[in-house]
Amino acid sequence: MATQRLTLDNIRPEVRDAQYAVRGELAMKAEEFRERLEKGDKSLPFDNIIFANIGNPQQLGQKPITFFRQVLSILEYPQLLENEEALKASFGYKQDVIDRARTLLKGVQTIGAYSHSQGAPALRESVAKFIERRDGFPADAKNIFLTGGASSGVNTMLNVICENKSTGVLVPIPQYPLYTATLALMNAHCVPYYLEEGKAWGTNVNTIRESVATAKRQGIDVRAIVVINPGNPTGASLSPDDVKNVLDLAVEERLVVIADEVYQTNVFIGEFTSFKKRLRQLQKETPGKYDNIELVSLHSVSKGMVGECGHRGGYFELVNFHPDVQAQIYKFISIMLCPSVIGQCLVELMVNPPKKGEPSYELYDEEYNGIKNGLKQRATALYDAFRKMEGVECQDPQGAMYLFPTITLPPKALLAAESAGKKPDEFYSLALLDATGICVVPGSGFGQKEGTLHFRTTFLAPGTEWVQRITKFHAEFMNKYR
Amino acid sequence: MATQRLTLDNIRPEVRDAQYAVRGELAMKAEEFRERLEKGDKSLPFDNIIFANIGNPQQLGQKPITFFRQVLSILEYPQLLENEEALKASFGYKQDVIDRARTLLKGVQTIGAYSHSQGAPALRESVAKFIERRDGFPADAKNIFLTGGASSGVNTMLNVICENKSTGVLVPIPQYPLYTATLALMNAHCVPYYLEEGKAWGTNVNTIRESVATAKRQGIDVRAIVVINPGNPTGASLSPDDVKNVLDLAVEERLVVIADEVYQTNVFIGEFTSFKKRLRQLQKETPGKYDNIELVSLHSVSKGMVGECGHRGGYFELVNFHPDVQAQIYKFISIMLCPSVIGQCLVELMVNPPKKGEPSYELYDEEYNGIKNGLKQRATALYDAFRKMEGVECQDPQGAMYLFPTITLPPKALLAAESAGKKPDEFYSLALLDATGICVVPGSGFGQKEGTLHFRTTFLAPGTEWVQRITKFHAEFMNKYR
Repeated sequence: MATQRLTLDNIRPEVRDAQYAVRGELAMKAEEFRERLEKGDKSLPFDNIIFANIGNPQQLGQKPITFFRQVLSILEYPQLLENEEALKASFGYKQDVIDRARTLLKGVQTIGAYSHSQGAPALRESVAKFIERRDGFPADAKNIFLTGGASSGVNTMLNVICENKSTGVLVPIPQYPLYTATLALMNAHCVPYYLEEGKAWGTNVNTIRESVATAKRQGIDVRAIVVINPGNPTGASLSPDDVKNVLDLAVEERLVVIADEVYQTNVFIGEFTSFKKRLRQLQKETPGKYDNIELVSLHSVSKGMVGECGHRGGYFELVNFHPDVQAQIYKFISIMLCPSVIGQCLVELMVNPPKKGEPSYELYDEEYNGIKNGLKQRATALYDAFRKMEGVECQDPQGAMYLFPTITLPPKALLAAESAGKKPDEFYSLALLDATGICVVPGSGFGQKEGTLHFRTTFLAPGTEWVQRITKFHAEFMNKYR
Repeated sequence: MATQRLTLDNIRPEVRDAQYAVRGELAMKAEEFRERLEKGDKSLPFDNIIFANIGNPQQLGQKPITFFRQVLSILEYPQLLENEEALKASFGYKQDVIDRARTLLKGVQTIGAYSHSQGAPALRESVAKFIERRDGFPADAKNIFLTGGASSGVNTMLNVICENKSTGVLVPIPQYPLYTATLALMNAHCVPYYLEEGKAWGTNVNTIRESVATAKRQGIDVRAIVVINPGNPTGASLSPDDVKNVLDLAVEERLVVIADEVYQTNVFIGEFTSFKKRLRQLQKETPGKYDNIELVSLHSVSKGMVGECGHRGGYFELVNFHPDVQAQIYKFISIMLCPSVIGQCLVELMVNPPKKGEPSYELYDEEYNGIKNGLKQRATALYDAFRKMEGVECQDPQGAMYLFPTITLPPKALLAAESAGKKPDEFYSLALLDATGICVVPGSGFGQKEGTLHFRTTFLAPGTEWVQRITKFHAEFMNKYR
């Protein structure tokens, strides 16, 4: 009998009921395997673990961009600037590294002090300029909020948006489970809308409209829509028309648009279109119609070719929020004082990298494109492998860091899963981990249509040897349960 | 008329109703003054701003500890290790800096990757060893959670503890407003207990007992108590007996103890006693009696002689939590993935600084004690000045970074405040800022007994010239309203 004051029965029910699968049972088992291998255990049928379950590029060996890290090293120890010659001669720092470090130090004074809760003003100015270059429309530093990764920005926005238990927020299914988990913490409704797997996981506004109608009939006050573009876990990338359709719907249904654009540079097919840009274009084309839309768009240093997850940097931009509401958002974030200042500086570096002609440009460009091409190659290799596997279907890899194939399992495998007390996709993923050391996330962690099965895998791990491990496992699994 | 979907009337009421004064009107006005001075404005009666409103040491010129920052610079750019000789010869890095950087890199692999959500295991091991050395009792890394500053730890714990709107948490008054703000966000009750100003802001358990009884009569489920030791804003430091009294009360009333110990090294009089140590001592002395107490104790890199607020590092240790509840705490923090990894590394450096005989020890010791002595000197200078001011009373400076004097204002000043629509302590603090450029926080931001007036000032600003500015202002203010 528990003697503690706090038990599972009396803690906050919203916390207890929130689901978060990305770091669940499979991830823990993979971590145990890793520790066993590290201690010299030879009894496992593989000699390394491939953490394909989270978008954590540097864990899998992606190298940080040199320019970024050189600047950050100076910010940590500004006395390095007292001997510029040695920095250059002994460590290859270029003049633009030194100049940028000086500029950032001037902007933040020191990375050891709390900054403005919204982020240091000089850094927010730089983010605003980036958005202007990207979109061709003005941006204002006072509407930029630097954050500890995009997750913290999502948390802030849902805290403000979710009025009470009648509030509903539209969330794509499959989705990144941060959204459902945070809505559960807020005791608000996740109003699901299904993405169209047959159309490369596209966003169908008619489906969304039906979801809104159903929710309204249940008395739910649907007031916001989450769009993840490029998609996680699907990898889908929205066309300018797709974005317009969502904005039209937002006008029609009076929805705040939450655009999760953390994969904006991970686009392999076509071009990224930001919601902000499309909104401004439409406002110009059809004056008045779109002026009531509130948009928040999120970005992060964790993804893209930056891949600096551990630095916890990101930002969101607010468009057309009521000043009173914006003041409340500011108050809310100020309770946590400020995001990591070195993380804030990395956001600045991400949005303002070396330009052509500057001393660090050549290396930056080489590293950036090296990572980008590597991702594309591995995405393609993995996609090709999935296409050849029995009972596996996979949509074109368009963007982000993930593939999300469908798997059709033989009836005997479904029975075996049932008798093991597992969902079939969990059962498959656990078997994959046990046989190959490759850790993926079952589709049920993201949501999937009733009766369908998927898993999400990143394509971050170097090389393509591990792709063959999956192919081999899959064939054996299918044969076993045929 | 607002056309936005979100207005002050339909956002989350818990967010709207939360109060957070530390970064409120006064701080914004001080920031405006700073900007005016920076732009060359000569019309103000002072030529710099003293931000005595927040405990932000490096903003006020406190220098970072060299050893910490040298190690962090290597973590940001590990290629520095490829030329150890140049690091030593050109930049004065010692061998132990290099060794520590290698150890930390081995522990986290790279600071650019997400770590374990609870913090990298190797770093938590080091924190556990620190707690063992400090207290003389075992600590276990699996009960340590690294956090993005102590604020984030408090947020986590209150999210789990606050079951519903009947939940009450005992909070000292005056208090750091993080507690009242977070309880407001949770829609739970802040159950205030007043500290005894006449006894150096001591903690009186009889007062607490009365607060519990009153709350219970109102149907409140009082289940936890916050103790800030050393105190913020009061600077009070609890004796071993004081700590025992709180623990006895926790047994009696079945309270989870939340020990905010972020100022544990800022103690000028007597010695710091951790709640964990005292609990373990009492468990040894009186077997059985204290075994049902759950304790969470919090620490941070932001305070002490470290003063690295911008790095957002901290930890909490859980003692005797039910494993099911601890698993829920883990799930909750995993939604935000992990705290800043460079911040985690700084926590390790804080708890495991250079030891006597190691190459960096001498400089570390000199820097550490230089900061400590400077704080003590300024605390004393400020205290002496307050003692001489008309209508001002101030308790001995025992610890933390703050003094919290009482001010008794003439009736004419109270009338002037009323006609300005301000609380009297706000009115006084605004007048102080306007006249001297010194920004403090009115006592009403922390809570104070009805009819009493205070303000909180840090003693972080270098020199003591600014203390005379306060003395001069105060005399003029009193004369004006006599």
